[in-house]
Formats: sequence, structure tokens, C-alpha cells
Amino acid sequence: MKPVKVGICGLGNVGGGTFNVLKRNAEEIARRAGRGIEVAQIATRRPNPKCHTGSTPTCSDVFEVVDNPEIDIVVELIGGYTVAREVVLKAIANGKHVVTANKALIAVHGNEIFARAREQGVIVAFEASVAGGIPVIKAIREGLAANQINWLAGIINGTGNFILTEMREKGRTFEDVLKEAQALGYAEADPTFDVEGIDAAHKLTILASIAFGIPLQFDKAYTEGISRLATADVNYAEALGYRIKHLGVARRTAAGIELRVHPTLIPADRLIANVNGVMNAVMVNGDAVGSTLYYGAGAGMEPTASAVVADLVDVARALTTDPNNRVPHLAFQPDALSDHPILPIGACESAYYLRIQAKDHPGVLAQVATILSERGINIESIMQKEVEEHDGLVPVILVTHRVVEQRIDDAIAALEALDDVVGSVVRIRVEQLN
Amino acid sequence: MKPVKVGICGLGNVGGGTFNVLKRNAEEIARRAGRGIEVAQIATRRPNPKCHTGSTPTCSDVFEVVDNPEIDIVVELIGGYTVAREVVLKAIANGKHVVTANKALIAVHGNEIFARAREQGVIVAFEASVAGGIPVIKAIREGLAANQINWLAGIINGTGNFILTEMREKGRTFEDVLKEAQALGYAEADPTFDVEGIDAAHKLTILASIAFGIPLQFDKAYTEGISRLATADVNYAEALGYRIKHLGVARRTAAGIELRVHPTLIPADRLIANVNGVMNAVMVNGDAVGSTLYYGAGAGMEPTASAVVADLVDVARALTTDPNNRVPHLAFQPDALSDHPILPIGACESAYYLRIQAKDHPGVLAQVATILSERGINIESIMQKEVEEHDGLVPVILVTHRVVEQRIDDAIAALEALDDVVGSVVRIRVEQLN
Repeated sequence: MKPVKVGICGLGNVGGGTFNVLKRNAEEIARRAGRGIEVAQIATRRPNPKCHTGSTPTCSDVFEVVDNPEIDIVVELIGGYTVAREVVLKAIANGKHVVTANKALIAVHGNEIFARAREQGVIVAFEASVAGGIPVIKAIREGLAANQINWLAGIINGTGNFILTEMREKGRTFEDVLKEAQALGYAEADPTFDVEGIDAAHKLTILASIAFGIPLQFDKAYTEGISRLATADVNYAEALGYRIKHLGVARRTAAGIELRVHPTLIPADRLIANVNGVMNAVMVNGDAVGSTLYYGAGAGMEPTASAVVADLVDVARALTTDPNNRVPHLAFQPDALSDHPILPIGACESAYYLRIQAKDHPGVLAQVATILSERGINIESIMQKEVEEHDGLVPVILVTHRVVEQRIDDAIAALEALDDVVGSVVRIRVEQLN
Repeated sequence: MKPVKVGICGLGNVGGGTFNVLKRNAEEIARRAGRGIEVAQIATRRPNPKCHTGSTPTCSDVFEVVDNPEIDIVVELIGGYTVAREVVLKAIANGKHVVTANKALIAVHGNEIFARAREQGVIVAFEASVAGGIPVIKAIREGLAANQINWLAGIINGTGNFILTEMREKGRTFEDVLKEAQALGYAEADPTFDVEGIDAAHKLTILASIAFGIPLQFDKAYTEGISRLATADVNYAEALGYRIKHLGVARRTAAGIELRVHPTLIPADRLIANVNGVMNAVMVNGDAVGSTLYYGAGAGMEPTASAVVADLVDVARALTTDPNNRVPHLAFQPDALSDHPILPIGACESAYYLRIQAKDHPGVLAQVATILSERGINIESIMQKEVEEHDGLVPVILVTHRVVEQRIDDAIAALEALDDVVGSVVRIRVEQLN
């Protein structure tokens, strides 16, 4: 078969990696795909010093690639929502298949993009948009197709996991590690997307859609970052046998679907609790298969390129298929998506870690216990520390059984109203992930 | 589209699970596949009490299913090499697609089976043959298609991992745990396939083929079991910061491909070293993606059925594709398989853990060090224990740097010839798995 012609839009980190992998492994890839995958044109504003494009034609206008009649597949690696969206929609309108690594674009505009792609009978593949080189989208969409997915939980932001790992292993503060991550190039100058959980929420939105067969609903994801996480809580969690990870959690319940990103206590002996540094991992629990886990590099030039190129091979194979009998973009047939609602965070259920700063008076514990018990909240474990010298306060740390979040909100308000409780109660969700 | 008709041959554990999952999740599966997947006929000698087949036609002759003109896909869940092979070859000859969970059949007769399948333009899918419900074949074959795979290493026998976990956590002996595993139904009455590594070698043979693009060569796999593993070595490994796992390891080197199953020391902080009980995990290292890991239940009624049904969905989608543009059976195009040789174990390279039982004489350590040094074997760490009361011997434990196995064989022969060394030297391979 003749080679498939690819146009790369954007020659940054992932674009450069994609070009390099396609070139270096051209033979290996053709041995698998049964045909070559050739880069016919690259659109980029500036050269990438890590990528020697040689005789491959380049241009500065991405729409030149999109309109190039020679090109079968457009690879969108520009990032962002604006030009990237135009590029993808124009490529589709031109009858070209698309491969993208753009989680923000898919999470926010995916429903529109997939609708247009269906009308045109083309594929938009996006494995690289979640967890870099880990083929987790393929695993959920195809590998677990037999299952009702019950829940999934992922460490899907490497920067956040690097920061949490350093805080735990070296007792460093959030601010201190963030500065280092920025110096190392792991974190952007504006780290909001990473540390406030927005990037993770984009990825979680995509995973939840393909797991549960629901439209993409990024605006309904609950997002809480790690920027306010205190080293004290990292240490108390450790003492209780837990690790704190910044997790994206999606769970199917009878009432609706939970879709939430937040710091989470996980029992220290769980495999996912031992995923450290910039690495990513996603657990997926299905009714037939039980719990599975997928681990690897969640970012980086070549790991992400690995996913982009795998999509290119998939698309090259699908060129000769019936458009109505392909793997659907969101794993489920578009006319079979569910309208099961996304639950507001108050209706979500988990266990909770609470840290209360109390005055060193007798009877505080009894007051705390009463407030929780009146709201039907059971205590799993409790730990009262010694009086802290600098403020004379006693930290009371407890972990509850599973309960609906509204009740914890109510209990926290009551706790904070106590005369003997000082400041805000720290609340971190707890998941067992069996 | 009209439903796909499936015939199940064999209604044991996996057959019953497959029927149950197809029935329970019929709607979810059809929402994904775009069409129903219906069991049209089941061949079984006896009913499965865990599986209520209701109005589904059953028969006792598997060839009735294979010859049933209504049936599109034959699911072979009989096991073994004889009838299973005939069933699969007859189904192919009849132009039917095949899904199988039979690792022995694929590892030993796969080259023949795939050749026949190609001639007939049909698919033989075998995700369930390795690591139960973990979609690791799909991950390697499609998800990592961009990569030159450097190596893979897997805990791919749950029975063996259960035994090793109990030995380490509870200080029990191999024989003691094996008896319990047999009572629990994890191990067969004849445990040879599991504990001597034959089952793992079947699975490793399959993984290596799809990773490196080589024909299936089960007869060239090196296989060493766990039945002679002493609790003492489990404990010494722990003291050195390692865990012992029964690994299947496949590695590509310039000289050839290593294909070996044996007990292995792994640094205790590696994720795969923390995979316990009956669970399976496979690490795969590619030149672009780096190291990835896939974890889940490696056996069991429904986890294995999860993989069988995922294959059914894949085949249902591929029914309308060009047979020459499908994912190849062994990941690489049949005319592009490599003749890179499988290395004999003597030519394989790893680090080694050695335990030497020495008489309590001065100068023994110097003799040991000389023997290793003369053969260019560097010592990574060494630990001399106190004299053991029951025999007056001193255990000397050491870990070497990486070296070709022949040199270690030679060194062990020289060590065992020393007057001050008593009995055999214990040798266990060590892998870093970065």
C-alpha cells in the first residue's frame, strides 16, 4: 500500500517528538502498519532545535497544511482552544482525518468536533490528550469494552505529582517545590492549569466520557487544586497509613456521575499510592475485570509522541473501513450516549480526613464527636496530637466513613462555629480504591 | 446492523464467565459495538452451575458449533493442544473468525494457526491468553505501535505470585503455601505448569512475538520455576532492598532476543515489586514511551471473560474491513517478521544474586572475590551473615553487576570446587527494571 501522508501543525515539544519518532522508527512502524507513514508538510512559526526536519517541506501557515490536497491526516499540536479549533474543524471539513494531543480542545469543544467528524466520515483521534504515552484511552474504549465501568481514578498531572512527591519525601513546602518545578521546566510560569487541577479536569472529562458513554461536560467537573495543601497534612496522612495524591475521580452511581479533581488520601499500600515524581497512572474498575491500572510517563516529548504515532497507525488502518463500523470517538455510538447527570460536588460521596485546630480545653473531643454523630457521620479513626508550642493549639485529626459531601459541609460549619475551634477545618477526601 | 452470532466451545470457568458477561452487559456492549453480540450456540459436555444458559441452544459436540452456518465467530475455551487445535483450524477453514483464551495453543501452534487464518482472511484474537483481563496485548500491539520495544517483564502467573507473596509476607515455605493454593483452587492438583514456569513461558512467548515482530518460538524459551526457592533467600533479598518475583523477561539485544522465565530479584521500590497475591502486571519499555506498566487480575471467570468479550467487539468491528489492512495477528505484517535469533540462556545478560555456604575459615571471602574478579564479574554489594548454629556454616550473599550468564556459570563451578564452600551455590537473577 502507498504511504499515508501526514501534515504536522505545530513543531514544539510534542510536534518535534512526533517528527523524530516517525523518522527514527519508520521501518518498525511500517512493519506494523503495512505501509509507511510520511510527514509531507510541517507548519511552524520557528524551528525546533531538537528536531532536524531536513528535506521535509515546512511553512508558517497552519492552514496551508490543512488545505494541502496531498495530506491524509492532519496532526494538531498547536494547543489552546482558538487556532487549534479552527484547524481541526477546517481539516474535518476538508475530509481529512485528525490526530490531536489537545486535551483542552477535546474536553471543551469535543462534542462539536466529533459531530462534524461524523458528518464527514473522518476520525479524530486523541490518545495523546490523556496521560501522555500510556494507551489508557485505547484500554478503556476497546480493551474494557465488555465492562460496565464502575469508577476510574487517575494521577493525570505529572507536575502536581512531582510536587506532592517532593513534599512527602523531603518535607518541603508547596511553594518551595513549585519554584524548583518551574526551574526544571516541569511547571509553567503560570502554574494555574497544573496545580489548580484544570489540566487534570480536562483529562478526567475525556476519560469519564469514554468510560460511561456520556457527552463531554468539562464545565460540570469539580476542581480543587493542591496549592493550599499543608506539609502538616501530608505528614499526618502518612502517620495514618495514607498518601496524598492529586486525583481525578469519576464514579457511576445510581443518582448520577461523580466528576471531581482534588487532593485525596489513598491507603499507602495501594499501587497507585506508590506512583511518584512526574509519572502518571490511571486505575479503572469494571464490573467484569475488577480493578486495573495503567502506568507510564504522562508528558514529555517522545512519550506523548508515542501516543500520537499510535493514533496515526490506527487511522492508517481505518482508512479502508466502513465509517459506520469504526470504534466511536467517545467509545459509545453517538446515538447511544447517556444523559445520566453529572452530580454537583455536594451530592458526591467519599470518606473524609478532617484536621481541626482546637484550644487545649477538656471536652473538645466530645463536642466534635457529637457534631459528627448528630449528622450520621461515623468516625473511622481519630488522632489527637500534643499541644503545639507556637500557638498552644491541639490538632485533632480524624478520618470518617463514607458519607455524602453535604453532610460534611454542614458538620464543618458546625465545628468552625465552636468556641474551642480556631480557624478553618482542613478537609481532604479519602478514597480506598480497592 | 444485525447482531453478530457467536458460538462458545467449552463452558467451564471462562466459557461461563463469557456467557454471563455477554448477557449481563448486553446493552452496554451494544452501545459500544453498534450491534448486538449474541450467543447462538454453546458446546459443552456438562452444565456449568454458575451459568444459566436459558433458551440458548446447547450441544455436546464442539464441531457442531464450528460447522453451524449461522455462527460468525467461534470462541474456543476448551484448553489444551489437541481438540482445541482441531476446533480452531476447522473454524478457520469454515471461514469463521476465532477468539481464544488458550495460551498453550497460541504459543505452540500459533504460527500454523495464523498462516491458515491469513489464507482464509479471518481473524484469530487472543487477548485473553495473556494476563487475563489486562488488555496488554492490545497495548503492545496497537498502543505502543510507535516504539521499538526494548524489553518487557511480567508477573504473568497468579498462582506463582500468590505463593511468593505468602512466602515473603508470612515467612512460609514454598510447600506449605502450595498446599493452601491447591485447597483454595488457585493451583491445580498437578501444579507443574504454574510453579515450573511453563504457563508463564507460554504467555511470554506470545508477548515477545508481538513486541519484537518475531515468530512464536516457545521451544526456545528458558524456563526456571520457583519450587526450589528457599525462604532464606526471600529474606536475604528483602534485607538487600529487593523482592523476589517470578518474572517472564524478554529483551532485545544486538546479538538476539532474550526469552526467559525465572525467579528474579527486583528493587523493592519498583511498582512491579509491589504487585502482590494473585494479581498480574506487565512492564513494557519502548524507545519513545519509556517504561509503562499494565496491572490487573490475570485469571478468574469474569476478568478473563472481559478480554474474550473485548476481542468479540474488535472482531465485530473488523467484519467490514479489508483483510489486508487489519491489525496483524502478531502486531507485525506476516512478511515483515524478523529472524533475529532467540539467545540461549548462557548468552543472556543480567545481574546475579549468589548465596554461598562457606566454612567459617579466614580467607574464604578473598577466595570468592578472586574467582569473581578473575572472570571480570564486579560485585555490587556483599553481605556476610553470622555463623549458623545448626551447621556451623557462614552464608555469604552477594549481588553482582550485569554480566553474561556463561561467566557466572563458570564462576559458580569454580566456587563450588573450593574446599571451604559446602553444597551448591544459590543463583537468582537480578533485574533493575528502570
